[in-house]
Amino acid sequence: MNPLERLKSEVCQANRDLVRHALVVLTWGNVSAITPDRTRVVIKPSGVAYESLTASDMVVLDLDGRVVEGSLAPSTDTPTHLHLYRSFPGIGAIAHAHSPYATMFAQARREIPCLGTTHADHFLGPVPLARALTPKEAADDYELNTGRVIVERFATLNPVTTPGVLLAGHAPFVWGPTATKALENAVALEAIARIAHGTLALNTCVPLETHILTKHHDRKHGQSAYYGQPPKA
Amino acid sequence: MNPLERLKSEVCQANRDLVRHALVVLTWGNVSAITPDRTRVVIKPSGVAYESLTASDMVVLDLDGRVVEGSLAPSTDTPTHLHLYRSFPGIGAIAHAHSPYATMFAQARREIPCLGTTHADHFLGPVPLARALTPKEAADDYELNTGRVIVERFATLNPVTTPGVLLAGHAPFVWGPTATKALENAVALEAIARIAHGTLALNTCVPLETHILTKHHDRKHGQSAYYGQPPKA
Amino acid sequence: MNPLERLKSEVCQANRDLVRHALVVLTWGNVSAITPDRTRVVIKPSGVAYESLTASDMVVLDLDGRVVEGSLAPSTDTPTHLHLYRSFPGIGAIAHAHSPYATMFAQARREIPCLGTTHADHFLGPVPLARALTPKEAADDYELNTGRVIVERFATLNPVTTPGVLLAGHAPFVWGPTATKALENAVALEAIARIAHGTLALNTCVPLETHILTKHHDRKHGQSAYYGQPPKA
Amino acid sequence: MNPLERLKSEVCQANRDLVRHALVVLTWGNVSAITPDRTRVVIKPSGVAYESLTASDMVVLDLDGRVVEGSLAPSTDTPTHLHLYRSFPGIGAIAHAHSPYATMFAQARREIPCLGTTHADHFLGPVPLARALTPKEAADDYELNTGRVIVERFATLNPVTTPGVLLAGHAPFVWGPTATKALENAVALEAIARIAHGTLALNTCVPLETHILTKHHDRKHGQSAYYGQPPKA
Repeated sequence: MNPLERLKSEVCQANRDLVRHALVVLTWGNVSAITPDRTRVVIKPSGVAYESLTASDMVVLDLDGRVVEGSLAPSTDTPTHLHLYRSFPGIGAIAHAHSPYATMFAQARREIPCLGTTHADHFLGPVPLARALTPKEAADDYELNTGRVIVERFATLNPVTTPGVLLAGHAPFVWGPTATKALENAVALEAIARIAHGTLALNTCVPLETHILTKHHDRKHGQSAYYGQPPKA
Repeated sequence: MNPLERLKSEVCQANRDLVRHALVVLTWGNVSAITPDRTRVVIKPSGVAYESLTASDMVVLDLDGRVVEGSLAPSTDTPTHLHLYRSFPGIGAIAHAHSPYATMFAQARREIPCLGTTHADHFLGPVPLARALTPKEAADDYELNTGRVIVERFATLNPVTTPGVLLAGHAPFVWGPTATKALENAVALEAIARIAHGTLALNTCVPLETHILTKHHDRKHGQSAYYGQPPKA
Repeated sequence: MNPLERLKSEVCQANRDLVRHALVVLTWGNVSAITPDRTRVVIKPSGVAYESLTASDMVVLDLDGRVVEGSLAPSTDTPTHLHLYRSFPGIGAIAHAHSPYATMFAQARREIPCLGTTHADHFLGPVPLARALTPKEAADDYELNTGRVIVERFATLNPVTTPGVLLAGHAPFVWGPTATKALENAVALEAIARIAHGTLALNTCVPLETHILTKHHDRKHGQSAYYGQPPKA
Repeated sequence: MNPLERLKSEVCQANRDLVRHALVVLTWGNVSAITPDRTRVVIKPSGVAYESLTASDMVVLDLDGRVVEGSLAPSTDTPTHLHLYRSFPGIGAIAHAHSPYATMFAQARREIPCLGTTHADHFLGPVPLARALTPKEAADDYELNTGRVIVERFATLNPVTTPGVLLAGHAPFVWGPTATKALENAVALEAIARIAHGTLALNTCVPLETHILTKHHDRKHGQSAYYGQPPKA
């Protein structure tokens, strides 16, 4: 299989896994990935049911949004994905899903504070919130402007250590180096949001100590990370 | 298969899918559909378990409630369904289920405010609440009067852009152009209700900006909708 | 199969269905039934995993608690079951499960108010709460005294129209004419408790109008009930 | 199969069962066990997906943390497990999982009060909370110090009748005589935490009477326990 076909296959699987991890109902989510040379983006077609999705249904576009392969219309959220790929060179894939608990925080327009090590293992600090679009931003190029408010929110944040965002009144966008990793971060975000929601219901909110936050993030992602198996020689 | 047999088959499947989507336990729900010429309604038989339901169990009635096909008694909620078909010419199918989160709002007698784009994709504004029946309305023609209070609530609402309602102290009725679409709207309503419930628990309730509400509804259902695949030529 | 073997088979299946309906984890529940002549009770053995349960594992006792069939020890809750059979001649089977939402109300020591028609379809009024046992009642014949506080609570209640109870600080006991019906009532109680819990979280608690409560209970269980299929001739 | 191979097989199965009981997502948990002579500990390898786990992937260490068998790196939490085995001679296996409801209490830094008999059947009193680590404890030997704060919390508690703990800002550690029993206690703790969470949401918190707490714990674990089947002769 050539690399693009393999990428289509991985993106297709990650889209189908949105259902397996209960992150979506109906067609409320989409996953995309970009080729290593950053010239082609593979994304789910719009409004197609996950259970009937095959790798050949995936739509391939260039970074200006021109379809270069595939007979179906791409996800309506495509301009958001493309803008993130153009703006965040460190990311390789994006998962967008209206997963319930992350969406609750997005609708409440609250960042998710870091309340425990589960969170610290995936996000080095709060899950940030991007602002709602103005009437003008919603009227013209709504999906592109959605990408822009995310990038605006990351002016002082690193998308590699903060691999996702909540859109006010909408839902999360999550990313990672590969489609599989972006999906894992979406699964982690939903679990983190659920646990944070239940923690806040206990009427206490003690943020995790900074020394534990950085310790947990570093043991998994830092220069001397020791979580998981060592890279194969 | 002739069109009526096909409709019975689709209605049977939609009833069975109530279980698959966790919208019902026991026999707490029913789906019906009307023929395109609006002379025959196909509905689930009363009190029959979903797993044993077959297309030939479906009951066919005329709009006055006379059974014209089928050996089983129709759902006790049949007079409600029939009244909605007589009153709302734009709908083709109805799904009624005591799905937990929608029923919580119905029991709390609160409309579901539009708090995010997930909601806006399906309902152009709040999910409305129909009032409880008076003692007289409950005593005589309870199920017909249930249909009447729904129609009364829609005096100033469009059932096409607001495809469902909460009955005070009872549960939702949801509809759509086909049984499949009515079921999808019931799935969407339950997810919307669940996310709204969790949003309100965060003690904040910012309604979605009107310009985003209309933008999201229009990109899916408006005249220039661009969500999903273009209609086949 | 003779009637007692058939009863053992039905009780075994109802016990296994506790897992299928997510009413139990580990071995936190048991179902029993009494023969029509009310001389023999069939109950789950104590501490045996549901997935390995067979009809021949069921324990048969007389109403004084003497084992008349079966090689395993009966459920430790057996004296509670027996006392209910001796006291409530109208019931044929009992299901006890620490199902999460019903147990939350039992632990909060709150009755479940009738907030909607879902509740009214199964319980003609609130789900009652039986008091906690005194130190003396707990020390001597704990399980028998558990049955006694339930019967005490029903001094002015009808166990046929109120087919279950919450034990303060413990969990529910639910019953019905057959093991299958007792299980259905346990499923209904858990769903009712879950919906009531979420309704109360919306900070409103409007009890269902009495005329709707009686209407819904009557259309399912009253003398002129019209829910479900007519009895076969 | 020799005893060590059998132990590896049981530990592997208990790790896989974390998923079956919905106690983990991704790789958020690990189970270990110690040999009866307390010289060897068997534990899950770090960061390996549960579905692909086999008994031969298990890592075997001595009590000083030297790997004596297995080609994969052990769980990063290994020093915590080892310290608990060295300190609590009465335990034979440990299960650590970021299960959602137990983690909510850990993040809220609240002990779980004993609110009902479900809790009393497994924990003879509240589920205790161990304090967060200081910056120095987090910087040097983080995982070993995690074990130390647990042991510190048990200065006046018996790890046999209190088979688990919540770590402030982290998640629970649970144990038992065998891997199967440790897993059962983790399942029980998650269910207990979920029911307690929902009980507290009802805005009432009546602790279980002491005479019922001890009665329930004793009938299952006391010297004259009568729950379950008598030991085979």
